[in-house]
Amino acid sequence: MSLANRSLVTIDDLSNGEIEALFSLADEMADSPNKQAVLCQGKIMASLFFEPSTRTRLSFETAMLRLGGQVITAVDVGATSLAKGESIADMAKVVGSYADLIVVRHPWEGAARVVADYAGVPVINAGDGSHEHPTQTLCDLYTIRKERQTIKGLRIALWGDLKHGRTVHSLIYALARFGATILFCSGSGLDMPEHVLRRLGTEYKGELKSCKELNYETEKSLFPLDAIYLTPSSPHQLAMLPDINVQVELKAGVDALYVTRLQKERQTSTVEEGKSEKSYPVVDKKLLKGKVFEKTLVMHPLPRVDELTHEMDADPRSMYFKQAAYGVPVRMALLAILLGAKEVTVDRDKDSFIREIDYPVYKRDSGVKCSNRNCVSNQETEVRYIKPEFRIVSRQLLTLRCIYCDHELYPHYVASSEWHEGRLENKRYHSADSRFARKIRPENLIIFASENEAQAKRFKPSSYVKQ
Amino acid sequence: MSLANRSLVTIDDLSNGEIEALFSLADEMADSPNKQAVLCQGKIMASLFFEPSTRTRLSFETAMLRLGGQVITAVDVGATSLAKGESIADMAKVVGSYADLIVVRHPWEGAARVVADYAGVPVINAGDGSHEHPTQTLCDLYTIRKERQTIKGLRIALWGDLKHGRTVHSLIYALARFGATILFCSGSGLDMPEHVLRRLGTEYKGELKSCKELNYETEKSLFPLDAIYLTPSSPHQLAMLPDINVQVELKAGVDALYVTRLQKERQTSTVEEGKSEKSYPVVDKKLLKGKVFEKTLVMHPLPRVDELTHEMDADPRSMYFKQAAYGVPVRMALLAILLGAKEVTVDRDKDSFIREIDYPVYKRDSGVKCSNRNCVSNQETEVRYIKPEFRIVSRQLLTLRCIYCDHELYPHYVASSEWHEGRLENKRYHSADSRFARKIRPENLIIFASENEAQAKRFKPSSYVKQ
Amino acid sequence: MSLANRSLVTIDDLSNGEIEALFSLADEMADSPNKQAVLCQGKIMASLFFEPSTRTRLSFETAMLRLGGQVITAVDVGATSLAKGESIADMAKVVGSYADLIVVRHPWEGAARVVADYAGVPVINAGDGSHEHPTQTLCDLYTIRKERQTIKGLRIALWGDLKHGRTVHSLIYALARFGATILFCSGSGLDMPEHVLRRLGTEYKGELKSCKELNYETEKSLFPLDAIYLTPSSPHQLAMLPDINVQVELKAGVDALYVTRLQKERQTSTVEEGKSEKSYPVVDKKLLKGKVFEKTLVMHPLPRVDELTHEMDADPRSMYFKQAAYGVPVRMALLAILLGAKEVTVDRDKDSFIREIDYPVYKRDSGVKCSNRNCVSNQETEVRYIKPEFRIVSRQLLTLRCIYCDHELYPHYVASSEWHEGRLENKRYHSADSRFARKIRPENLIIFASENEAQAKRFKPSSYVKQ
Repeated sequence: MSLANRSLVTIDDLSNGEIEALFSLADEMADSPNKQAVLCQGKIMASLFFEPSTRTRLSFETAMLRLGGQVITAVDVGATSLAKGESIADMAKVVGSYADLIVVRHPWEGAARVVADYAGVPVINAGDGSHEHPTQTLCDLYTIRKERQTIKGLRIALWGDLKHGRTVHSLIYALARFGATILFCSGSGLDMPEHVLRRLGTEYKGELKSCKELNYETEKSLFPLDAIYLTPSSPHQLAMLPDINVQVELKAGVDALYVTRLQKERQTSTVEEGKSEKSYPVVDKKLLKGKVFEKTLVMHPLPRVDELTHEMDADPRSMYFKQAAYGVPVRMALLAILLGAKEVTVDRDKDSFIREIDYPVYKRDSGVKCSNRNCVSNQETEVRYIKPEFRIVSRQLLTLRCIYCDHELYPHYVASSEWHEGRLENKRYHSADSRFARKIRPENLIIFASENEAQAKRFKPSSYVKQ
Repeated sequence: MSLANRSLVTIDDLSNGEIEALFSLADEMADSPNKQAVLCQGKIMASLFFEPSTRTRLSFETAMLRLGGQVITAVDVGATSLAKGESIADMAKVVGSYADLIVVRHPWEGAARVVADYAGVPVINAGDGSHEHPTQTLCDLYTIRKERQTIKGLRIALWGDLKHGRTVHSLIYALARFGATILFCSGSGLDMPEHVLRRLGTEYKGELKSCKELNYETEKSLFPLDAIYLTPSSPHQLAMLPDINVQVELKAGVDALYVTRLQKERQTSTVEEGKSEKSYPVVDKKLLKGKVFEKTLVMHPLPRVDELTHEMDADPRSMYFKQAAYGVPVRMALLAILLGAKEVTVDRDKDSFIREIDYPVYKRDSGVKCSNRNCVSNQETEVRYIKPEFRIVSRQLLTLRCIYCDHELYPHYVASSEWHEGRLENKRYHSADSRFARKIRPENLIIFASENEAQAKRFKPSSYVKQ
Repeated sequence: MSLANRSLVTIDDLSNGEIEALFSLADEMADSPNKQAVLCQGKIMASLFFEPSTRTRLSFETAMLRLGGQVITAVDVGATSLAKGESIADMAKVVGSYADLIVVRHPWEGAARVVADYAGVPVINAGDGSHEHPTQTLCDLYTIRKERQTIKGLRIALWGDLKHGRTVHSLIYALARFGATILFCSGSGLDMPEHVLRRLGTEYKGELKSCKELNYETEKSLFPLDAIYLTPSSPHQLAMLPDINVQVELKAGVDALYVTRLQKERQTSTVEEGKSEKSYPVVDKKLLKGKVFEKTLVMHPLPRVDELTHEMDADPRSMYFKQAAYGVPVRMALLAILLGAKEVTVDRDKDSFIREIDYPVYKRDSGVKCSNRNCVSNQETEVRYIKPEFRIVSRQLLTLRCIYCDHELYPHYVASSEWHEGRLENKRYHSADSRFARKIRPENLIIFASENEAQAKRFKPSSYVKQ
């Protein structure tokens, strides 16, 4: 399947084979940057930034210009168009009629998908709230692969704010897909969110162990560690002798340490502020003097503040400025491919990752709404045309995942459209986790936001409703 | 007359023939956009936006880039240069020494004319306050002509906020020039301003009838209607059997419905806010299900908010996204012409509209000032060099129209410079509407802002001053 | 020495010969601007503006585009990256990995040097606080030279706010280097700062006379005058018959009058605001009607406010709009040279100015800090990696000049690292101006911020410490 005219909203929009092909092209771009100056001649890229970002935007714009294309830029679009009450779908349609491709950043989670749905031209997500930032992930993967030739089987430690960092969530899924072992070293109160962990376990087939579970002794450890995710292909010794093996695994050395910044600007709720000081150890020469870190690639998506000292800048292990620089060839390759200036086709049969799980979709018009206040589907200007839509990712504990922002919710009551058709007296609702409810076929499933909604719609409790 | 090196400040800067020629070129641009990539090579367009506007700016920049030209952009210039107290004339001169053409948007009415006067290069008005936005008008006309092959004789309904919309005022004059019949359907408290209506009657030779005058029964009508403007060439039956004919005229169907947004950001005065809620019916499938709307082009300058529902987007009658898309070829044609990259000459003899009325100009240094607080001629930084200047558009009720913002004022007292030369005892002032005063030749006319001014300048009341 | 790949942080980064060569190239650019459109093809310039500036930025961008290069722009970067606590060194490194050259404006004094130190590509200072703005100086010099063929021996009057204007400080040193006579005509309370005057005297070898010293009678004078700086090559008659000669000198006429704007935005301290109204005479036709101004070039860096009337705009002596227009060819020449697209080599032997004085540098890690609160070396985000560094420009009264912002400070206590090595009882500190202290070799010098610091470091006062 060709990549031309497709959009990149989440890292999962690309299969492993496609990512590999993209990286080969990026190598070509990096090796002879001056030969690319005619590839995208006559093409226009629109930078639509509803939230400021100097680094990411300039990286994309540089990439487009180096390909011979041109750029139109709107920074802080929000102030203009939102003040007028315009929807992002309208903005997407209009700008899509000007430009050949749109790069969009937006503070709302899921906004990039909406732009992609309406623009009529390829759209690249340059960050949508705390949701995804797939080109950052591509740069991260490219850096590791460039320096270590592979990602499979490497031990990658993620350090710091694993709760708010959008770059880090996209990265985790991608690392899992490529078969890396992931070490979670989060600061206190900055743990990886539950839904990310759960998804790792269910969709990427590896094995996730929390250190508490493993009796891993942090105080004796080489460095603070919360949990470890083992690639499916690694020897599953942990299951047998877990705590010993973690130590063994770690003594083999960390291949990359991915440091993140404490994302103060994403800690909006006052509840969070009330909590105790969030922090994690500074990454400096002292921390990295141990044998496990001897050959570690020190990575950071930048900007950094105090979590990674300037003294590391000259250290040969430090990769973060290279990582930023690689952003240009990676984005050049991506733009060239999506604009159809370079053809990359991947043999589907040999491709190691294609979205394997095809969850059923729930889009019945009901009271069920995404529980994420920052989701695009909950915004005043967007509810005029967006209908909530979810993937049903589990029936055991009924779990809906918002197709826009990937947040999950767990409704308690359901009914079946089949069993009561036309007959009021048959309208019954059931507890979602009852054996009976779990048998309702997805296409017949009616999901209620609350028991009140069910009753307002004149459904009566069945015997499968727990009291 | 060639169009190269001219400016476009108001839609009246172009004759009908010139607009037709521009549209033919726009067709060419739309048909083969990729053949235009060398037309403006080596030329630089400056986007000078003293007020933010994503849509209009990106449309111009796309157009210039598609012509092979380059762009320099300054958004929100106001914050920078105004903070330093600089005049827009100085900014115009400096930027005019960098770029080959300037596109300017400014919140002050009349600002684009000042920029055009001082820049030394062609200037395009991309919106000056509530005054004009001529390229929007060109896109609107182009859309109608593209879809209906002509504008002459069509019935165009204007819907919503006819008071504040700058796009709508420019459009009205242009429609009148091209011989359309215009139906005014304004929301309550959002009527077309008096001066626009008056001008329609005096300068465009058609016939304007308010529905009140016509005993048009709104409650029985197909849709709310305030007034109708009939093109000079349409059969003048209305004068004889007015109310019946409006119904007849309307039953023939509306060719285009031009919906506007409630321009909240232009309602600055507190008096206005105090007034009752402004509103007008939402344009949706239900409203448009009648026979009169069967083939109606649904237009909107965008951004829209709630006045036009998203359900209309997929309707084949909806033209608003096409309208936005046409902005690029229309602006490409305009830029190519003004930069001299394409020659368009129109035979003056055959041209159906050239500014016909040559009003005398009043620019004597006196106390008469434009009454529009938002006019460029009343701004602190600009009064250093701008002298008020007016067209004398009527002597019956003495009416001065500001050459910058087109607002009108009605001074009450005048004198003649001829009749008192050198002799103090002859200095007399007269009521402007007296028979005597109306005979004073324009070049001799002295106009006073007030009776006080006349007396302060030692004029005495003549017998032609009403007590 | 080639200029390719060098940075322009201060006007002193260029020798007189290099400036002359640059001007010859600028002449070429101005004469055939359309022949330059391939010179910088494939090159990208980054405009990094941490402080808004429409004029300067657009001038640079126009220059780059006219050379066939491309531009990436970030305006008001401060709001984005500083909010995240990022250092300018990090920003410089990242953007330097995208672009081929960086143009930077920043409100902190010395910021451009830091960017140049870290970017890895040539950097042009487009203004760093009140420190320097070297390309403005180049445009000023180019205008004078273009109109008068030379700068040497001309009489240039500087008018207005000589205290805050960054353009004017850079200009003064440059004029001195090229051998002009400088007349200081500052407004009340807006005198040239002491350190600028001192530097003129010590480093540029001319003679500086204040008018008070000369008994120059302002009230009888042709125009207000504070001081005069005489080029080394002019006949030194002033020393003998000072006041007569100033009059004689002035009667010969002023070659250029450089008017400046009152820089309100740089008057931050509340103390200053408390002072009496700052002002200076308006430059208008009346002021310039005298014989001394008959052939005076009237210059202004723009923007102007009220200090130079609009009536002067049409006067043939007025150069300020030409000055702005010359910005493009001058910047084209500079960009072409630094990017290596044009080779300019200057014979060092024949070059009339190369930094002659090589002051010893003090960079010992001690408590001595730049006293300028707005210096880059004092900013929270930058102290993580910047160590204060100073040139020792005088031992008489110990004077340190900050290598970042050029502010001077005068520490009172010093010690020698040689004389106490290893032995605590020998650790003595001395008054910096004592005969003994002045003998300490620069490489052994330890400088204390205060007597307290010396004592905290367990030094005891020597007999060379004044009580």
